[in-house]
Amino acid sequence: MKLLEDRILKEAKALSDEVLLVDMFLNHQVDCELMYEIGGEFSRLFARDGISRVVTIEASGIAPAAMCALIMKKPLVILKKQPSLVLKNGILQTEVFSFTKQKSYMLTLKPEFIAQGDRVLLIDDFLANGEAALGAARLIEQAGGTVAGVGAVICKSFMPGLRRLKDMGFHVEALASIKRMGAGEIVFED
Amino acid sequence: MKLLEDRILKEAKALSDEVLLVDMFLNHQVDCELMYEIGGEFSRLFARDGISRVVTIEASGIAPAAMCALIMKKPLVILKKQPSLVLKNGILQTEVFSFTKQKSYMLTLKPEFIAQGDRVLLIDDFLANGEAALGAARLIEQAGGTVAGVGAVICKSFMPGLRRLKDMGFHVEALASIKRMGAGEIVFED
Repeated sequence: MKLLEDRILKEAKALSDEVLLVDMFLNHQVDCELMYEIGGEFSRLFARDGISRVVTIEASGIAPAAMCALIMKKPLVILKKQPSLVLKNGILQTEVFSFTKQKSYMLTLKPEFIAQGDRVLLIDDFLANGEAALGAARLIEQAGGTVAGVGAVICKSFMPGLRRLKDMGFHVEALASIKRMGAGEIVFED
Repeated sequence: MKLLEDRILKEAKALSDEVLLVDMFLNHQVDCELMYEIGGEFSRLFARDGISRVVTIEASGIAPAAMCALIMKKPLVILKKQPSLVLKNGILQTEVFSFTKQKSYMLTLKPEFIAQGDRVLLIDDFLANGEAALGAARLIEQAGGTVAGVGAVICKSFMPGLRRLKDMGFHVEALASIKRMGAGEIVFED
């Protein structure tokens, strides 16, 4: 997606070979008009997958996933990372290790929000090791749904997540795929 | 907002005198078309406040705030509750006690995402004790902005938050204000 790649080249910063700072338009300050364009791009890329529900993981996936759900006119389900007073009984959980936060969390879903036979489009901001997507897929399948598509705003294609998901047969789309990055350099896949 | 009040009466559950379960359309499963209507209503209610930026708190405020920012064509800033690899230096923090989670967290802002003189519309899903809104206001003011409006999707007007914010001179709007609730009963303000 050229609009997104241009924005990454203009504003993002490679903090190391592996960490990309995009907090000026994607995950701290958010350009919601860009998110709307991103949601529209996902809706086109997965138009033939019979999507019945959009799922994301709190918190950085919510803005693009909400725009995608709005455009596709489907319900959005936000997988939670923390328990609360009102979410503690009858829940599904799976452990996920976060590369960015360098610790594990319990990804949580109330199974009533996935219908039997649901065809889920899973949207997240980053695809790196694929741990979050695989955890989400476990919960969605336990609840009776199928992962019909995985959409990442940005993929670090030099990390194993993209390959792992494709090898499992998932339809995966990334709007910007970074082949390598480092000091002052961000290079996309052709 | 009648659309929202009707939805609350139809689907929400009062789990006690103080805890309202709205996870079927607002904070676990999310109806993004309703969120878009909510964003539009906020944009009308705060149309005269010279808003230059929308701010919310992760994670349940993001969907309605993103729709509001989209409609108002303003940047969104998401205040964070957890540190990460890429957000640890040069940040502003303040401690907030969460009624729903029954524990404190450090609300976090990178000050470069509030411009000097910014007139901020603060959007959140619930207004109860007002702790989160007051914490957000402290960070926004420390960063050089002004809170020009506070919009809550749902206000528990029997709790002190609404009164506290109004007494401090903030322009506060709630789309649904609950006067009292309990077993099988949810009563709105007139």
